Amino acid sequence: MPFTTYELTPVMGQKKKRIGILTAGGDCPGLNAAIRGVGKTAIVKYGMEVVGISSGFTGLINKEYEDLNERQLSGILTLGGTILGTSREKPYKRNGELDIDKPALIKKHYDEMKLDAVVCIGGNGTMKTAALLAKEGLNVIGIPKTIDNDVWGTDVTFGFDSALWIATDAIDRLHTTANSHKRVMVIELMGHDAGWLTLYAGMAGGGDVILIPELPYDIDIVNQYLKARARKKKSYSIVVIAEGIKRPEGMSAADYIASQIESGTGLETRKTILGYIQRGGSPSPMDRILATRFGAHAVDLIAKEKFDRMVIKKGEKIKSLPLDEVGGKTRLLPENHPVIKKAWGLGICLGTKK
Amino acid sequence: MPFTTYELTPVMGQKKKRIGILTAGGDCPGLNAAIRGVGKTAIVKYGMEVVGISSGFTGLINKEYEDLNERQLSGILTLGGTILGTSREKPYKRNGELDIDKPALIKKHYDEMKLDAVVCIGGNGTMKTAALLAKEGLNVIGIPKTIDNDVWGTDVTFGFDSALWIATDAIDRLHTTANSHKRVMVIELMGHDAGWLTLYAGMAGGGDVILIPELPYDIDIVNQYLKARARKKKSYSIVVIAEGIKRPEGMSAADYIASQIESGTGLETRKTILGYIQRGGSPSPMDRILATRFGAHAVDLIAKEKFDRMVIKKGEKIKSLPLDEVGGKTRLLPENHPVIKKAWGLGICLGTKK
Amino acid sequence: MPFTTYELTPVMGQKKKRIGILTAGGDCPGLNAAIRGVGKTAIVKYGMEVVGISSGFTGLINKEYEDLNERQLSGILTLGGTILGTSREKPYKRNGELDIDKPALIKKHYDEMKLDAVVCIGGNGTMKTAALLAKEGLNVIGIPKTIDNDVWGTDVTFGFDSALWIATDAIDRLHTTANSHKRVMVIELMGHDAGWLTLYAGMAGGGDVILIPELPYDIDIVNQYLKARARKKKSYSIVVIAEGIKRPEGMSAADYIASQIESGTGLETRKTILGYIQRGGSPSPMDRILATRFGAHAVDLIAKEKFDRMVIKKGEKIKSLPLDEVGGKTRLLPENHPVIKKAWGLGICLGTKK
Amino acid sequence: MPFTTYELTPVMGQKKKRIGILTAGGDCPGLNAAIRGVGKTAIVKYGMEVVGISSGFTGLINKEYEDLNERQLSGILTLGGTILGTSREKPYKRNGELDIDKPALIKKHYDEMKLDAVVCIGGNGTMKTAALLAKEGLNVIGIPKTIDNDVWGTDVTFGFDSALWIATDAIDRLHTTANSHKRVMVIELMGHDAGWLTLYAGMAGGGDVILIPELPYDIDIVNQYLKARARKKKSYSIVVIAEGIKRPEGMSAADYIASQIESGTGLETRKTILGYIQRGGSPSPMDRILATRFGAHAVDLIAKEKFDRMVIKKGEKIKSLPLDEVGGKTRLLPENHPVIKKAWGLGICLGTKK
Repeated sequence: MPFTTYELTPVMGQKKKRIGILTAGGDCPGLNAAIRGVGKTAIVKYGMEVVGISSGFTGLINKEYEDLNERQLSGILTLGGTILGTSREKPYKRNGELDIDKPALIKKHYDEMKLDAVVCIGGNGTMKTAALLAKEGLNVIGIPKTIDNDVWGTDVTFGFDSALWIATDAIDRLHTTANSHKRVMVIELMGHDAGWLTLYAGMAGGGDVILIPELPYDIDIVNQYLKARARKKKSYSIVVIAEGIKRPEGMSAADYIASQIESGTGLETRKTILGYIQRGGSPSPMDRILATRFGAHAVDLIAKEKFDRMVIKKGEKIKSLPLDEVGGKTRLLPENHPVIKKAWGLGICLGTKK
Repeated sequence: MPFTTYELTPVMGQKKKRIGILTAGGDCPGLNAAIRGVGKTAIVKYGMEVVGISSGFTGLINKEYEDLNERQLSGILTLGGTILGTSREKPYKRNGELDIDKPALIKKHYDEMKLDAVVCIGGNGTMKTAALLAKEGLNVIGIPKTIDNDVWGTDVTFGFDSALWIATDAIDRLHTTANSHKRVMVIELMGHDAGWLTLYAGMAGGGDVILIPELPYDIDIVNQYLKARARKKKSYSIVVIAEGIKRPEGMSAADYIASQIESGTGLETRKTILGYIQRGGSPSPMDRILATRFGAHAVDLIAKEKFDRMVIKKGEKIKSLPLDEVGGKTRLLPENHPVIKKAWGLGICLGTKK
Repeated sequence: MPFTTYELTPVMGQKKKRIGILTAGGDCPGLNAAIRGVGKTAIVKYGMEVVGISSGFTGLINKEYEDLNERQLSGILTLGGTILGTSREKPYKRNGELDIDKPALIKKHYDEMKLDAVVCIGGNGTMKTAALLAKEGLNVIGIPKTIDNDVWGTDVTFGFDSALWIATDAIDRLHTTANSHKRVMVIELMGHDAGWLTLYAGMAGGGDVILIPELPYDIDIVNQYLKARARKKKSYSIVVIAEGIKRPEGMSAADYIASQIESGTGLETRKTILGYIQRGGSPSPMDRILATRFGAHAVDLIAKEKFDRMVIKKGEKIKSLPLDEVGGKTRLLPENHPVIKKAWGLGICLGTKK
Repeated sequence: MPFTTYELTPVMGQKKKRIGILTAGGDCPGLNAAIRGVGKTAIVKYGMEVVGISSGFTGLINKEYEDLNERQLSGILTLGGTILGTSREKPYKRNGELDIDKPALIKKHYDEMKLDAVVCIGGNGTMKTAALLAKEGLNVIGIPKTIDNDVWGTDVTFGFDSALWIATDAIDRLHTTANSHKRVMVIELMGHDAGWLTLYAGMAGGGDVILIPELPYDIDIVNQYLKARARKKKSYSIVVIAEGIKRPEGMSAADYIASQIESGTGLETRKTILGYIQRGGSPSPMDRILATRFGAHAVDLIAKEKFDRMVIKKGEKIKSLPLDEVGGKTRLLPENHPVIKKAWGLGICLGTKK
């Protein structure tokens, strides 16, 4: 095709590869952009065959898949969710139900599907499984995704920027209500054990108090801080908290903190648990680009037969790490993270010590 | 000014009027647009003086107010919340605290502030208070606002369209997650005893089941409906419910319905309570225009000395009704509302009978 | 099905109907919502067969169509554009190309496709064609759509509210730039010969000057107005104009007005022509609901064999009018429209007379 | 204050500093977030005095400024534009008007205002001026901002991510119209001589052709590419172009490319010039955070008396560079930028060679 700008560089002596793609774990914005990035690069740049595997590792266990062509990959860049479906299936976890050797079954199906490699898009759990499957003999490439931003080894995961938009928009809306009614508004955000989303949304949304799992807090000091704001005629306060902060068992972070603030300060307090909407909808531009780059890079690795690696972002570059360095670790906010230090300097009540 | 297009039409024989504005009850998008509509029309069209009263009826009780000029009214059209603040103070309700005759105090302060009329922007409760204050001798004009759309006498209140946007956007986001995980997603929306927001957001968001306070439902039939969808390979369902539907005491609508669906169908079910973000943020274009028209019309009524009325929308026109016809009533969805009938025709499970 | 809430009411003695749907003229948000409203109501409520016709009247001329089932109608509620495609084909206009009798061909294909009725979704031009096709013997129902809101006979068309959002959002953005640089910003909006979109977006966006085709303006008076604002230390101004206002031939409204303002006032002036983005993207909640109601109502009319009518909104109700009362007329803003009068009262420079 | 989390670390032997802030050049989202980041950090963390200088360097020439306290810095995080105003004044450029030695005047006023340092927020031109003013004896810190992302020395400027959102949203909207009408849609984006915004928005928006100033293009090859798409039944194409690409003098990029495509391919083609809305509105979450971090870091540098530096982002860290290394250079896209290479691999027509 004389009009294309890209020069196809077939790798000499290689047969045309056939690769699988699956999405596993919780969904997040950008999964379809990553699927498209993998698929289009494989087809257009390398002439590979591409197979979409249904519902995460379940699709490998049940051998549910279909071939993907360029047309099926068209128009999905902007869509939330995943056209492949996802599941929380962990093939290395015995749930006692049945005594199937799922990893062996996966290897068998991988061979029967004549795959040369499989791209696993997921979070920490998925990367752990991917690392183990690599040891079974599959050629695996991991792509990190999650709104929690807690995948070890990469500066950032796709999904995070989109969730940050939704959470920040919600905080922006709470400001107007808080201000009109002179209230304390508590908003609980997702993130499991990590505070990335809460810290960043709290900073972007102008939160007065930010509580994250990584930094201890003392509710009495939070209350003193809020009372001091009230005394200084700052008529309302926004409290942004992570779902994973320390709290009594069986109680949501928002329920606990809101009740503690109201009883401890006497200030009228309301709570919001933002919930699943943080994961939904069209990905942000930066997530679309990051997911596309991750997807394309995964295929570049496959073309070079550099397997069993996870794609990462470092600074402005896309690189990769061995999967077995990554699997099973979680990336939490370090206590001396530069954003935390800047937040303290602005006077934000971000974690507290007695 | 030869370059203005509007010809000032001072009403002969009248002295320059001085009017107050207050916002009462829960906040909603468009309050500032209404304040601006009242204020600019009063100043520019009629040369009136305008006074902003703080925090709803509390400001009349405590005599907290300040004069507003054009500059203070500039730039607020797009802002959420209310620059005047609001409160849930109901001067006719004795809370036992103190034995003050609040209505008499309000009349005294109204006279001392030399007001010729006061514009009360609020919901049903505010209109009831406004109607009673009219009997004390105040000249009152009511402007209906609420995201619940339940003010009797008007086709629509401002705030509703903005809340509909936020709720619909949230449902759009839940679709992608529901689809990726093959789940039932339950979302609870505001509205007190009225189902307007839930019905409209359910329709706009493509809800499969919609439950509103005005229509009885049978959870077994809802579950049968969801199971039939699952059998027909419709892999997920969106259930949109109003906070005010029938449910066990002390339980939120979302908690109740989600648990009933999960236990009754065996389908994986998740819930979201959207909460206060439905009230916040910049008003929608139609709410900005409606609030502006309501505000301007209120002042036209004052200029004509037609007092003790509430501004309403009927079809495309802005009109008014006597406050004492309105106060204390709530506008619920009639069972045969045309949107309900269309929804049934689409196959939506909207209320159910045994 | 015991779990459905809607009781199917087959009309006695009627055979199962087969209906076509087409979308013609310029695209706008809500077309897919209307297609879904027609299709789902026809299938679910009446058990009809539904045929999607490609690319407006072109599809009838070329007999390009496909049957639609419920699955194809699922998930399109929120999509911009039209899944059927559209064209500006006007079968009653000879363009000299070929001497085909297109209307006769359309009737022939309509019969061959065994259609009992065809739903034509479009603007004024489409309604005119639909009215003429009704005279050829087709059973036709029209559904009015356009961002211009200029279809005669209905209070509002779908597409308008969505375009209003996009235009208002753009004006909101210009405010911040205008303010930072102390500039006059001119923004040109769509609307053909009608000023609905410009008037409403100008009101919602806080425009200082609004120029629409229906009201004459004098550029000298506009300039005087802007200079008076500058003298009063209102440091910037927003000028919202319709593409259809009076201007020198071959020149865009924005180019003309911006150059006249800059030369006439000496104020730094910038222009923006918003263009095609006004027509794109997901429909607003109110447009989704309106399009759905229009679509469902069209099918109700077909079920009752009330043909050759256009669906309309009057107040809060959906009704219909004979197509031949509607076709060929344009709905412009009346000079004494209540929004125009309120705008004048706010001091907006909206049209001017010497 | 026992309840704060931040330990104030006054630098020994220093008097309380007094610093100025100005914003210069074109406005962009995030300026107010940066002003707040500087001001709050200066006041809360270091107890400094803060002065807001009006309208960029014009404010230093005319000695127009006012003291800023915490209250004035509150609530501006989310606002577009700049509360200080901006101008394109370049004090080192003689425009012949008057023979004033502006730099000397600036130094005089800086001394009279008793400033210890001035923070200059702007683009490349502002950094050049800042570097020169440092040589006059002012203590200067530069903070890079621009939607063009073309400031030398930093990975990214604030404003870029926000503009990317607006541009991507516009492209998303064009897709639906392009698809409905089977058209080629050309959209022209800002960026001066740099293609960052166009490349990133083109990638995020799923552009088929992307033309940027840094890569040569051959219109015949673009047309061949578009015709090949049409032959492959890809019924529409999106062409995203930078304002700064090669084109005949006096013609906009969009006018030129759209006319060349239409005449060269026969495909129906429409154009949009997005214009000033790319610069307006509330900053994106990431821009709010970046601007805040830049602002806080600028003050940290002042506290350490490390002057005459520009704050930068490198990877995930905020650092700084000497102003005289930066001033006067422009950061263009390198031909082998990783995003360009990934785009080629996806089959995007991104620049072309004969």
